[in-house]
Amino acid sequence: MTATTTKQKHEVKDLSLAPIGKQRIEWAGREMPVLKQIRDRFEKEKPFAGIRLIACCHVTTETAHLAIALKAGGADAILIASNPLSTQDDVAACLVADYGIPVFAIKGEDNDTYHRHVQTALDHRPNIIIDDGSDVVATLIQERQHQIADLIGTTEETTTGIVRLRAMHRDGVLTFPAVNVNDADTKHFFDNRYGTGQSTLDGVIRATNVLLAGKTVVVAGYGWCGKGTAMRARGLGANIIVTEIDPTKAIEAVMDGFRVMPMAEAAPLGDLFITVTGNKHVIRGEHFDVMKDGAMVCNSGHFDIEIDLKALAGKATEVKQVRNFTQEYRLPSGKSVVVLGEGRLINLAAAEGHPSAVMDMSFANQALACEYLVTNKGKLEPGLHSIPVDVDKEIARLKLQAMGISLDSLTPDQIEYTNSWTAGT
Amino acid sequence: MTATTTKQKHEVKDLSLAPIGKQRIEWAGREMPVLKQIRDRFEKEKPFAGIRLIACCHVTTETAHLAIALKAGGADAILIASNPLSTQDDVAACLVADYGIPVFAIKGEDNDTYHRHVQTALDHRPNIIIDDGSDVVATLIQERQHQIADLIGTTEETTTGIVRLRAMHRDGVLTFPAVNVNDADTKHFFDNRYGTGQSTLDGVIRATNVLLAGKTVVVAGYGWCGKGTAMRARGLGANIIVTEIDPTKAIEAVMDGFRVMPMAEAAPLGDLFITVTGNKHVIRGEHFDVMKDGAMVCNSGHFDIEIDLKALAGKATEVKQVRNFTQEYRLPSGKSVVVLGEGRLINLAAAEGHPSAVMDMSFANQALACEYLVTNKGKLEPGLHSIPVDVDKEIARLKLQAMGISLDSLTPDQIEYTNSWTAGT
Amino acid sequence: MTATTTKQKHEVKDLSLAPIGKQRIEWAGREMPVLKQIRDRFEKEKPFAGIRLIACCHVTTETAHLAIALKAGGADAILIASNPLSTQDDVAACLVADYGIPVFAIKGEDNDTYHRHVQTALDHRPNIIIDDGSDVVATLIQERQHQIADLIGTTEETTTGIVRLRAMHRDGVLTFPAVNVNDADTKHFFDNRYGTGQSTLDGVIRATNVLLAGKTVVVAGYGWCGKGTAMRARGLGANIIVTEIDPTKAIEAVMDGFRVMPMAEAAPLGDLFITVTGNKHVIRGEHFDVMKDGAMVCNSGHFDIEIDLKALAGKATEVKQVRNFTQEYRLPSGKSVVVLGEGRLINLAAAEGHPSAVMDMSFANQALACEYLVTNKGKLEPGLHSIPVDVDKEIARLKLQAMGISLDSLTPDQIEYTNSWTAGT
Amino acid sequence: MTATTTKQKHEVKDLSLAPIGKQRIEWAGREMPVLKQIRDRFEKEKPFAGIRLIACCHVTTETAHLAIALKAGGADAILIASNPLSTQDDVAACLVADYGIPVFAIKGEDNDTYHRHVQTALDHRPNIIIDDGSDVVATLIQERQHQIADLIGTTEETTTGIVRLRAMHRDGVLTFPAVNVNDADTKHFFDNRYGTGQSTLDGVIRATNVLLAGKTVVVAGYGWCGKGTAMRARGLGANIIVTEIDPTKAIEAVMDGFRVMPMAEAAPLGDLFITVTGNKHVIRGEHFDVMKDGAMVCNSGHFDIEIDLKALAGKATEVKQVRNFTQEYRLPSGKSVVVLGEGRLINLAAAEGHPSAVMDMSFANQALACEYLVTNKGKLEPGLHSIPVDVDKEIARLKLQAMGISLDSLTPDQIEYTNSWTAGT
Repeated sequence: MTATTTKQKHEVKDLSLAPIGKQRIEWAGREMPVLKQIRDRFEKEKPFAGIRLIACCHVTTETAHLAIALKAGGADAILIASNPLSTQDDVAACLVADYGIPVFAIKGEDNDTYHRHVQTALDHRPNIIIDDGSDVVATLIQERQHQIADLIGTTEETTTGIVRLRAMHRDGVLTFPAVNVNDADTKHFFDNRYGTGQSTLDGVIRATNVLLAGKTVVVAGYGWCGKGTAMRARGLGANIIVTEIDPTKAIEAVMDGFRVMPMAEAAPLGDLFITVTGNKHVIRGEHFDVMKDGAMVCNSGHFDIEIDLKALAGKATEVKQVRNFTQEYRLPSGKSVVVLGEGRLINLAAAEGHPSAVMDMSFANQALACEYLVTNKGKLEPGLHSIPVDVDKEIARLKLQAMGISLDSLTPDQIEYTNSWTAGT
Repeated sequence: MTATTTKQKHEVKDLSLAPIGKQRIEWAGREMPVLKQIRDRFEKEKPFAGIRLIACCHVTTETAHLAIALKAGGADAILIASNPLSTQDDVAACLVADYGIPVFAIKGEDNDTYHRHVQTALDHRPNIIIDDGSDVVATLIQERQHQIADLIGTTEETTTGIVRLRAMHRDGVLTFPAVNVNDADTKHFFDNRYGTGQSTLDGVIRATNVLLAGKTVVVAGYGWCGKGTAMRARGLGANIIVTEIDPTKAIEAVMDGFRVMPMAEAAPLGDLFITVTGNKHVIRGEHFDVMKDGAMVCNSGHFDIEIDLKALAGKATEVKQVRNFTQEYRLPSGKSVVVLGEGRLINLAAAEGHPSAVMDMSFANQALACEYLVTNKGKLEPGLHSIPVDVDKEIARLKLQAMGISLDSLTPDQIEYTNSWTAGT
Repeated sequence: MTATTTKQKHEVKDLSLAPIGKQRIEWAGREMPVLKQIRDRFEKEKPFAGIRLIACCHVTTETAHLAIALKAGGADAILIASNPLSTQDDVAACLVADYGIPVFAIKGEDNDTYHRHVQTALDHRPNIIIDDGSDVVATLIQERQHQIADLIGTTEETTTGIVRLRAMHRDGVLTFPAVNVNDADTKHFFDNRYGTGQSTLDGVIRATNVLLAGKTVVVAGYGWCGKGTAMRARGLGANIIVTEIDPTKAIEAVMDGFRVMPMAEAAPLGDLFITVTGNKHVIRGEHFDVMKDGAMVCNSGHFDIEIDLKALAGKATEVKQVRNFTQEYRLPSGKSVVVLGEGRLINLAAAEGHPSAVMDMSFANQALACEYLVTNKGKLEPGLHSIPVDVDKEIARLKLQAMGISLDSLTPDQIEYTNSWTAGT
Repeated sequence: MTATTTKQKHEVKDLSLAPIGKQRIEWAGREMPVLKQIRDRFEKEKPFAGIRLIACCHVTTETAHLAIALKAGGADAILIASNPLSTQDDVAACLVADYGIPVFAIKGEDNDTYHRHVQTALDHRPNIIIDDGSDVVATLIQERQHQIADLIGTTEETTTGIVRLRAMHRDGVLTFPAVNVNDADTKHFFDNRYGTGQSTLDGVIRATNVLLAGKTVVVAGYGWCGKGTAMRARGLGANIIVTEIDPTKAIEAVMDGFRVMPMAEAAPLGDLFITVTGNKHVIRGEHFDVMKDGAMVCNSGHFDIEIDLKALAGKATEVKQVRNFTQEYRLPSGKSVVVLGEGRLINLAAAEGHPSAVMDMSFANQALACEYLVTNKGKLEPGLHSIPVDVDKEIARLKLQAMGISLDSLTPDQIEYTNSWTAGT
C-alpha cells in the first residue's frame, strides 16, 4: 500500500545541498534544547513504533528537528511543504540524505506540484497527520473518506488551521480527534508573538533594507501575531496604526499606545502595511487606490490571500521586480505599490521563518501532541482537543531549565493559603 | 430585619466633605462613558426594582458611579469598604448626602469596624452581593447560612476573590451562582494591566517621590497585574526583575526582556519591591535580611499579606514614619527597609486607585453581571459563571464609540471565508 | 544696608511646619549622595567664608540640601522662591528654624510679594547669585547697576535663563561672569530629561488621576525636557504627537516613532497638551478653538507664559475649579478646556518637582559652579562660562560610586591606541 | 600623472553584475530624496568642475548615489573601498559600467589589495579626499607629503576617523583643512543611532537567525552608536548590559534602564556581545575565558580590532564555519565562542549597511562638505572644521519636506520674546 511512496522516496531540489543543510540544522539545534530532550526520550521509548505519520510543515531547519525526533521515536514519517515559498532546499536534501526521511518539497514549487505532494503524503495512509493550515486534513475529508479509518488523529498549530477545523466541526465532518497545538500557552504566547514579531520585521528588512525608524507601519490584526508584529515594529522606531474588527482587541491596541482606525483611513497614511489577520482581502482594490506612492505591502498571515493581489494586478500598468522578493506595481495614477514576498508569509519568503528558540517550544508541543494521540488512541472524542495543561507547563519548565533560570516555589504555608478560602483580610 | 440598617443609615467620617466628593465624582464621570450609558438605560428599565443589593468595594469616585447606576436601576443598595485604607471620605459623604445611598466606610477604620460593617451589610439581607476579595461571601457562608435563601447570586472582580471562590466550590460550600467579573476581557485586560500598572507606580511616586529611572525594581508575580506593573516601571526607566512560580509566565517575562530569578536572589539586588501575586509572605524574613540599605517594599495585590510585616517588625530595632505612607524599619545590622502604605494596596493607600477610564469597563461589567443574575434568576447553576461574551464585546464597543474610534467590519466575502473550510491555499 | 534683611530674617508661611519639613528634607537626602559628599568637603574647607550669596530657586527639599551645603561652606546665604507655586512651606520653615537660613517664600505668594522678595534678596548685596530663570539677574541689571561691583558672578540652571543671559550678552549688559550650569552633561542630560520627564507626568496624574494609556498626548518642544516628557508619556501608554520649530529635533522625534505636526493640526487631536518650549503662547486662542471637549492643557516649561491663558479666559463663559490644580474653562461652543496648575510648571504645582536623585547632580553642579566662581574671582571674562569638563565628569563619577556601579578603564594598550593615528585597519 | 588611473580604469569583481547593481541602486534612491535634490542642483551648478576627488567609502548602493552626485557636479571622482568586507560587487560594477565612475573594490579583497587601492587612489592626485576611518589621509601624510600641495581638504564621517584626525592635529601633521562630517547633527544623531542601531541587529539576525527576545545582550560603548544598538536590541526584546569607560555615559545608560558593569563582570552573563567603542581589544582573552558556552561576539565599530580575535584564535582548538559569517571557536574547556562577520562591521559584513534613509542625510553632508571646501578654498585654517550649522539645518529641512512633514514657525511675538531678556515672570 505504501509502495507508491516507497518507490519514489523523495522529491527535493538537489541532494548535493545536504552538507549545507546539515550545518544549518545543527546550528538551529543549539537553540532547541527542549525538543532535544524529548527526542532523547523518544529514542529510548519509541512511542511511534509502527505508526505512519505525515507532516505538512514549512520545511525549515527547525522542522528538521521535529522530523528527526519523530523518526527517533519510531515513526514512519514523511514530510511535505505547507507553503511553496518557505521550503529550504538544503534542509530538504539533508533530511533525505542524512536522516533517511522522505521529503517532498521544492522551494517555489507550483500549485499543481504542491497538491500532488499532498496526494503523495496521503498515499502514505497516515495514522497521524501534523497539519499546518489544515489543507491536508481538508483534502482527506473531501477526497479520501475511506482513509479516515486509518487515522488516530491530527494536530494543527496555526490559527488559520484552527479556524478551518472549527468550521469542519460545525459542518459535522470532523469525525476524528484533532489536537489544537496553537492553543498551548507555550505555543501561541511565544511563537505567534515573539517569533512572528521578530521574523516578520526581519523579512521586511531583508526584502527592502529600509529604515523602519520614522516609518508609519499599519498592522492589520491585533491577535497574538499582530501584537508581536506591532511591538517589534515599534521597537525598531516605527509609528504604528492597527486595524481590527474585534472591539476588545482594538481597545487593547489603543491602550498599548497605538492608533486604531479602519483600513480605509489607514491606507493613505501607511508607509508599510503588514497583514496578520487570518482572513482574506484585508487590503484590497479600494485601499491600493489611496495609498502613498511607493507604499509597501506584505503579509505575515498563514495564507497568501490577505492582500488582494489580483485586484492590484488588474489595476497595474506594469509589474517590475525591483529587488529580490520585491515587486513594484505601477498604477495608472503614476504612483506605485510595492509588494513584498508576493503576498506570501514574508518571514518565510524573505527571511528564515521563526527563530529556532520559539519553534523549540512549538514543536515540542507538536511532538508531545502526537504522543498524546497515540497514548490515548481510541479514547478521545472526535473534534478539537487542547494540549493537556501539564504538558504545556512541562515544556515551559524544560525551557527555563535549559536557560539556566530558576523560579520560586510555593512554601507549605503558601500552598495552604492558596487552598483556603477562610483566611481573609 | 432591615430596620437596623434603616435606622443607622450610614457611618462616614464627615458629611461636610460631600461637596468635595461631588466635585471629584463628577470629574471621574468624564472618563466613564460606558457606565454612564448603562446608567441611563437602567434609569428607564429599572432592572433592580425590589432588589436588595450590597456592594463591598473600594469606596472611590469610580465606585460612586457604580453605586449611582445600581440605584438608578431601582436597587436598594448599600455600600461598605473592602479595604480599610482605600476609602475616600469625601466620596462616602457625597453618596450619603447627595445620592441617599447608605455608606459604611471610614478611611483607616480598624479591623473590628471593618468586620462590623460586613455584618451591617449582611443585615441588609442582600439578594445580590458585589464582593471584592470574597470576604463578605466567606462571612455569609460561615456565619449566615440561613440568608443564602435570599441570595440570587454574587459577583466578584478580583483574582484573589476568584481563587477563594474556587476553593469554596472545591469544598462544596458555594451553593449559589457567582459571576466571575474578573474573567471578562474588558476587565482583566485593562483594569489589571493598565489600571494596576499606572496606579501602582503612581502610588509609589506619591509615597516616595523617588526617581524610578535607573532603579532596580523587583516585581513579584507576572500575571496581568504584574505585567502591567513591570511594563510601567520599565516605561519610567527602571530595570526590572520578575519573580514567578509559574514556568510559562516566567518565560513570558524573560522574552519581554526582564530578568527572572527567585526572590532569594532578587532580594539583595532590588531598590524597590512590588508584590502582585495574590499569595502570602512573598517577601519574608529571609529576604529582608539580605536587602540593600534603604530598600523599599510595597504591595499591589489585593490583601496586605504579601509582605510579611510581622517578621520585619520582629527584627526591627526602630520603626519610624519618614513620609506619609512611608515607614522605615531599622534592622540590627544598621540597614533599613522602607515599607510603603503599610503593605496595603499602594495604589489605593498612597494614590487614588485605578484611573476612572479602566474602572469604567470593570464596573460596567459589574453592573451588567448584576443584571445578568437578576434576569437569569433561578436558571443558573451554583458555582462560578463567566460574563457572557456578547456582554464583554458590547462593553468594548461602547468604549470605542465613546473614544470616537471606528473599526473595520467583515465584508460578506470575508464572512463567507471565515465560515468555510474548503477554500484553501 | 544688609541691616534690613538681618532684622527681618525670614518670611515663611508657618514655622510650626518645620518638623514635617525636616522629615521630608532628610528623606530627600537619601537620594543625594553627591551633594552630601560635597557638603562634607565644604564643611572642612569653607570655600565661601565671607561670601554673601543669594539663591533664587524652587524651595523644595532638594534645594534645602543645596542651601545647607552652601552654608556649611561658610556662605552668608539667603533663599527666595523662583516660582510662586512651587514653594514647599514646610521646607521653608525648617530651613529657617533648624538651619538658620533666611528664607523668603510662601506658596501661592502673589506677584508683588515675589518681586518684593527679589528686592529683599538684592538688599543682601550678593557676591554670588544662584538664579533660576534669570529674573534676579535681570532686576539687578535693570535696577541696581551700582551693586554689580559687589558681584563675583552668577550661576543659572534653566534653559530659559540661559536664553535670557545670551540676549543680555548680545545687548552688552552682561558685564560679569555667569556660569551656565544647564550646560553640564550631568545637569541637562538627567535633570531636563529624566527629572522633567517623570515629574511632569507625575504632576499630570496627581492633578487629574486620568489613565494615560490610550490618550493622545501632544508635547510641544523636543529639547531635552520634551524628549523626557515624550519618553515617559509613551512609557505610560500614551500616543505622542510632537510639535517643533527646529527641523533637526523634528526629524529626531519622527525617528523616535512619534508623529510630528504643527500645533494647528495637533490641537484637534490631543487629549492632553504639555508645553516645554521655553517660548510664549505656544498654545493660543486659535488652538483652544479647535480642541476636543475636555482637552487638558498644562505647562512644564520654566515660565507660565507658554499657554495663552488670557486668551482662553477671554473666550470662556465660565471658569470652574474641578479638582485641586485643575480648572475647567467653558467655551461658548459648549466644549471645555481643562487647565492644570494654572499653566505654571505642573511638576512643581501639582507634584513635588524633580526627584532628588537628579537634583543631586544638578545642585552638585550649582555648588561647584559657585566654588569655581570664588576660586577664579577676577579671572573670568564677563559673559557665559561652561562648567569645566572635569567637574562634570567628577560629579558623574561620584554618582556612580554612590550607586555601587563600576566601569571599565582603558588598558595601557588602549590608551596608546587612542592617542595614535598611525595604527590602521 | 593621472595616466596610471586613466589606463586601468577600474578593478571590480564582475562587470556583468551591473544590471543587478543598477536595480538595487535605484531602489536605494527612493529613500534618498535629499541627496537627489543636491545632485539636481550640482548638475546645473557644476561646483566640482576641474576637481580631482577620491572617495574611500563602503561601496554600497547609498555610496553610489554620493558618487553619482559628485560626478554630476563635475568632479573627476574615483571610488575605493574603505572596508574589504563591505563592498557590494554589483554596485561597483554598475558604477563603472553605467556611470563611468572608476571603482577599485572587490568584496573580500585582502589587505595587500586594499592598500594597493589606497595607492591607486592617491595616484589620482586628489584635490579633495572623502575618507572613512582616515586611512587614506594617514597614508597621504606618511607617504606622500609632496601631494599635500594638491589638496584643498578632506572630509571624514566616522567617529574613529575623527579621533585619528585629532591625534594628527595634536602631532602637528594635519596641515590642511578637514571637515568633520560626523559632527553634523543630521549625521551622528541619525546615522550613528538609528542607522547603526537597526543595521547592527539586522546583521546579527541575518548571520544567526537567533531570537533576540530573552537574550542578554552586552553592548560595549554607549556613544551614539551604542545608544542606537542598545535601543534596538531592547526593542527586539533583549535584556541589555552596557559597558563604558565614561561616567556620564554610564549614568545615562543606567537611567535608560540598562545594567552597567565592567566587561569582566558582563562576560559570563552575555548571550551576545556587540562592540561599538572605537577602541581596540574591548573583548579580549580574559573575557573569552569566562563566557557562556555558545556566546556570540560581534563588532559594529569602524575597525575590526575591537574584539581580540588573535587571542581567541590562540586559545582555540578548532575553528569551524557554522553558517555564513559565523565561525565557532572551540576552546580547550569544551565551550565555544561564536564570532560573527570575522569581527568586522557586522552590519556591512552580514547585512547591507545603514539603510538609505539615514545615509541620505550623511551623504548630503558629505556632498555639501566637499562643496564647502571648494567654495572656501584657501580660506580655511588647517585642522578640523565643523559643518556650518545652516547647512545642517537645511539638510534637516529638505528631509522633512520630502517626508511631507511641516513644522511650527515662530510668530513675530515669539521671536521678540526669544530676543528679549527683560520680559519676565
